[in-house]
Amino acid sequence: MSKLRDIQDVSIDQGVQELLEKARREGVDTAFDRADQMSTCGFGSTGVCCRHCLEGPCRIAPNGKGPQRGICGADVHTIVARNFLSHLTEGAAGHAEHGREVALTLLEAAEGTAPYEIKDQGKLLKVAQDLKIDITNKEPKEIAKEVALKALEDFSKQKGIMNWVELRAHKDSLATWNELGVTPVNAHLEISKSVARSAMGCDADPLNLVLGGITMGLVDGYAGLHLSTDLQDILFGTPKAVKAQYAMGVLKEDMINIAVHGHVPMLSEKVVEWARKLNSEAKEVGAKGINIVGVCCTGNELLMRQGVSVASSFSSQELVIVSGVLEAMVVDIQCVMPGIQAVAECYHTDIITTLPYVKIPGASHIEFHPEDADEAAQAIVRKAIGNFTKRDPAKIAIPQETVEAYAGFSTEQVVEALALINQEDPLQPLIEAITSGKIRGVAAIVGCTNPKEKQDIGNVTVAKELLKNNVLVVATGCAAHSLAKHNLMNPQGLAYCGEELRQVLEGIGQAAGLPSLPPVLHMGSCVDNSRPADLLTAIANKLGLPIRSLPVVGSCPETHSPKALSIGTFFIAHGVDVHVGVSPQVSGSSVVTEMLCGDKVSEGVTAEKVFGGKLIYETDPVKGAQLLLERIDSKRAALGI
Amino acid sequence: MSKLRDIQDVSIDQGVQELLEKARREGVDTAFDRADQMSTCGFGSTGVCCRHCLEGPCRIAPNGKGPQRGICGADVHTIVARNFLSHLTEGAAGHAEHGREVALTLLEAAEGTAPYEIKDQGKLLKVAQDLKIDITNKEPKEIAKEVALKALEDFSKQKGIMNWVELRAHKDSLATWNELGVTPVNAHLEISKSVARSAMGCDADPLNLVLGGITMGLVDGYAGLHLSTDLQDILFGTPKAVKAQYAMGVLKEDMINIAVHGHVPMLSEKVVEWARKLNSEAKEVGAKGINIVGVCCTGNELLMRQGVSVASSFSSQELVIVSGVLEAMVVDIQCVMPGIQAVAECYHTDIITTLPYVKIPGASHIEFHPEDADEAAQAIVRKAIGNFTKRDPAKIAIPQETVEAYAGFSTEQVVEALALINQEDPLQPLIEAITSGKIRGVAAIVGCTNPKEKQDIGNVTVAKELLKNNVLVVATGCAAHSLAKHNLMNPQGLAYCGEELRQVLEGIGQAAGLPSLPPVLHMGSCVDNSRPADLLTAIANKLGLPIRSLPVVGSCPETHSPKALSIGTFFIAHGVDVHVGVSPQVSGSSVVTEMLCGDKVSEGVTAEKVFGGKLIYETDPVKGAQLLLERIDSKRAALGI
Repeated sequence: MSKLRDIQDVSIDQGVQELLEKARREGVDTAFDRADQMSTCGFGSTGVCCRHCLEGPCRIAPNGKGPQRGICGADVHTIVARNFLSHLTEGAAGHAEHGREVALTLLEAAEGTAPYEIKDQGKLLKVAQDLKIDITNKEPKEIAKEVALKALEDFSKQKGIMNWVELRAHKDSLATWNELGVTPVNAHLEISKSVARSAMGCDADPLNLVLGGITMGLVDGYAGLHLSTDLQDILFGTPKAVKAQYAMGVLKEDMINIAVHGHVPMLSEKVVEWARKLNSEAKEVGAKGINIVGVCCTGNELLMRQGVSVASSFSSQELVIVSGVLEAMVVDIQCVMPGIQAVAECYHTDIITTLPYVKIPGASHIEFHPEDADEAAQAIVRKAIGNFTKRDPAKIAIPQETVEAYAGFSTEQVVEALALINQEDPLQPLIEAITSGKIRGVAAIVGCTNPKEKQDIGNVTVAKELLKNNVLVVATGCAAHSLAKHNLMNPQGLAYCGEELRQVLEGIGQAAGLPSLPPVLHMGSCVDNSRPADLLTAIANKLGLPIRSLPVVGSCPETHSPKALSIGTFFIAHGVDVHVGVSPQVSGSSVVTEMLCGDKVSEGVTAEKVFGGKLIYETDPVKGAQLLLERIDSKRAALGI
Repeated sequence: MSKLRDIQDVSIDQGVQELLEKARREGVDTAFDRADQMSTCGFGSTGVCCRHCLEGPCRIAPNGKGPQRGICGADVHTIVARNFLSHLTEGAAGHAEHGREVALTLLEAAEGTAPYEIKDQGKLLKVAQDLKIDITNKEPKEIAKEVALKALEDFSKQKGIMNWVELRAHKDSLATWNELGVTPVNAHLEISKSVARSAMGCDADPLNLVLGGITMGLVDGYAGLHLSTDLQDILFGTPKAVKAQYAMGVLKEDMINIAVHGHVPMLSEKVVEWARKLNSEAKEVGAKGINIVGVCCTGNELLMRQGVSVASSFSSQELVIVSGVLEAMVVDIQCVMPGIQAVAECYHTDIITTLPYVKIPGASHIEFHPEDADEAAQAIVRKAIGNFTKRDPAKIAIPQETVEAYAGFSTEQVVEALALINQEDPLQPLIEAITSGKIRGVAAIVGCTNPKEKQDIGNVTVAKELLKNNVLVVATGCAAHSLAKHNLMNPQGLAYCGEELRQVLEGIGQAAGLPSLPPVLHMGSCVDNSRPADLLTAIANKLGLPIRSLPVVGSCPETHSPKALSIGTFFIAHGVDVHVGVSPQVSGSSVVTEMLCGDKVSEGVTAEKVFGGKLIYETDPVKGAQLLLERIDSKRAALGI
């Protein structure tokens, strides 16, 4: 068995270190330790292992020794491109399913069969009008129904292009995609076709496969990110600035703790609602009340709209249980480690799965459907309440630290804050700051934490490097957890900002009656990567420039999920450079690597030549940030600013 | 480098042996030889390698040494079930795309925008009526449009169950699926959901994942097989008994040879049409005419409807080129080895890809869309004509042997033949033969040839073992190639039949004015596995029994494609036992293996308990056939016959 990392090498979050030490002491296996024990496969990790039929697996040795083609004749470039496409397809399918479930919920809410309100009628009207729906003399529920049906068309129409692409895409980007023939017709059709083309004996052309990957990026971006954000805002409200607490210390010894984990807010919003309503029942069992804490993106969703505290990002999810005070962990979809059940069995925690197609052996299953959302949420909260007295006092240990964070920076909230400086033309102050160089560029730090990596160090280092160079940083997903926990979403973090950036943040903040904006703007969950995209589109439209020419970049320093690759592809398709800090598993093919990561002077077709943005793979976060700064500077130079 | 197999160990087809020897002599690399050189991966081949995120690959050692869970905590059962589901999803997606493209072609034909006729108006009316379409006073094209739109609903509807499930499923099977919640809503939705659920951090429950696999089997069966067959019969005619030639000897030295390869008949039908029309141009370049030969399932499609000769099944596709007389190989989708291009570069052959999402680097690409089918087919045929004079005479070598085969046994053709014995009740003679034991059972031998296996031996051995035990054998796909080439589709093969079976075949044949039916009835391509399913449903309905109780089995002795697994799953979901001769790559999980292959006395849930049929994995074809006979006998015993 391999040696385990020192606790200090697992995370820079002290609470995580403490809980991992406790887990090891108590003999509890976690992802961090399993990552140390898992040996590497040189084939799989470079993308050169093919398992698309029963002849294989076929593996191509990277040194030119042994067979250079699979049994069917696929070479290393075909194999790598196909595997990369499969990852993008998985990412897109996850987000598309998220989008579709929100659309179905909106439809049921509009039809009165599911107990949800339309919380943001303003956004409903705006989206409806932008979708060219006639809203004259219509009730909000009628309009909501039409919007939901338009959304569902993006999973069913057989001709044309997706409604949400027309709604949200920048016209220059769309023109490029149309020319290449990569614009999606509907999400499910494209996902199915993508699976079909990457099967044995179908598409063998690496370029064609990578272009298929661009379609998956667009499916993810529009049927996943944009559609989900728009409809979630309509249903649950568009986020506004909010203050909340981060880190494991948000768990409360004297309260019933329920962690909500996964991605889709439909159930977790109801859990929050029912936790409030059933507070008296919690007191009956001796607790002071019910404390909901967030994990992963479900955490981000509730943070953004409800100010719910956030306990953990992806990689340390099991450690929330190790605290010994978690009565229930309620999970929906994606990034839910199966390992949580084995950990929960060492404590009193109930793992509760909620969707028919996401189960974990041994876990409780309380099935959630929008129409009986209240019943499911009540059952879950009551199950947690019933668990409170089963705690083992000897196993309780909650890390002390919590960190305050400002969040809730939807595009609408950002524009609203800017409007306090220039009501006529809210984007103007931001654009001026960029043009003048006070803001050197804009970076979105997004994505994951990965148990193989030292938690938070990549995300935080890239952010600090960019901030000190006056890059405005926005964040989403688990990356946002990292940055929040390390004081980059509260005024303490201003110390890391370059002087000019700090002035801009303070200027805008003070106009809004705050000492300053936080150094990093939390824009939400992974699907809320739609928000920075919307902001970019608005800026590009205002300037009359394509997005590809703007000094903006994306970075996912601690990549673990294929969803990060499909989101990244969505941004690359707009011409935004995207940095990943963990291998995207394409290094086995020089051809595919060149297509994704090559530049304008590369041989053959590259993303940079076609779209104006590329994939940057760099494990060292300082170097990664440096490369992003170079890209920002070269785009500034091209603009002559 | 590993030692290559002796030529005799590669195939029992002498023409294939000759051409492989020639390929080796000429230094041409083929799949058979690459299969010998590829080392085995013990992880991938048992299903225990997970590549669903960027933490891994995670591999679980089968001996209990090393980590027993992936980094996320997925155990070997989750990992194997997820990989199995991915294979089924690929299979289903391939066939669903096939079905959808046929539906789009029918729509365009009906609307007059694509140059196709409605060749079988009788089948059109029958399908329309069974779909509950009102056909009163409607022109065939109007009806065809409505049928096509009903078909497209199976890729777009958001509620209910697929139209083709309602159209074709036996009510008892459907009741079981509905009870389990596995009945598909629409093909694309289910495929996308299947990709989403098998991604990292979603479904971790092996049973739930295997049930998801059942849905993929049903998607394959109804959106793929049944829908494709029905619409192809409408467009191109329902097959009738036909005689044709098999084996490499169908290539003609004095003619322009064009191989049509892949699965979808829309283009290949047009290539046949234009080869006839452009015959005079062939003569102008010194050829006697144009000779179309089939490869894989495109070959089966043209054989069934046009009597086109068949050169090769999957595993020897490259050797068609090695003959030195192939002017062009035209490919559409699936089972098209990328290796054909490298082989073609050693000869004068043009590889022509035809679909936008299936390309091969270096190959010519003439894009086919139904609306310009004539233009594409002409361009292809003319390209082949232009190639004739580029042959290298020193490289020409055509194997001598051809084998005559009777094919064209659609369900309709079988019923028509039986009606000559009993016009009132055509199925009665067949049912009587089964009940009396003259026919002990019915077996469909289906699926692939696999370059790792000795070509044809598995398919032929299982067939001969069953025939001599009086099992009526039908065949589809590449398995049908094997059986045809070895005289099991002409009267010579009657020598292999048990006495009682032979009497039945002769009885039906003689009523139709033939000496006998052939020992094996060729029912078509892989999507035409709908035909034996239709026959089973008709027999079950007539007897008032569920399909699961009938003494029928399926066998895929030389499995290579995941499509074979998804088709097999479709039959298992009906309660039909399915034998595979190549590992389905689930052996790493005792739990998943037990679910699929276990029996009524197994612990836990098994396919046999739920559906009445199971997966049988046996590499030895004699033993495989023996196991199938045991299953037939146990079903007979349960029926008391």
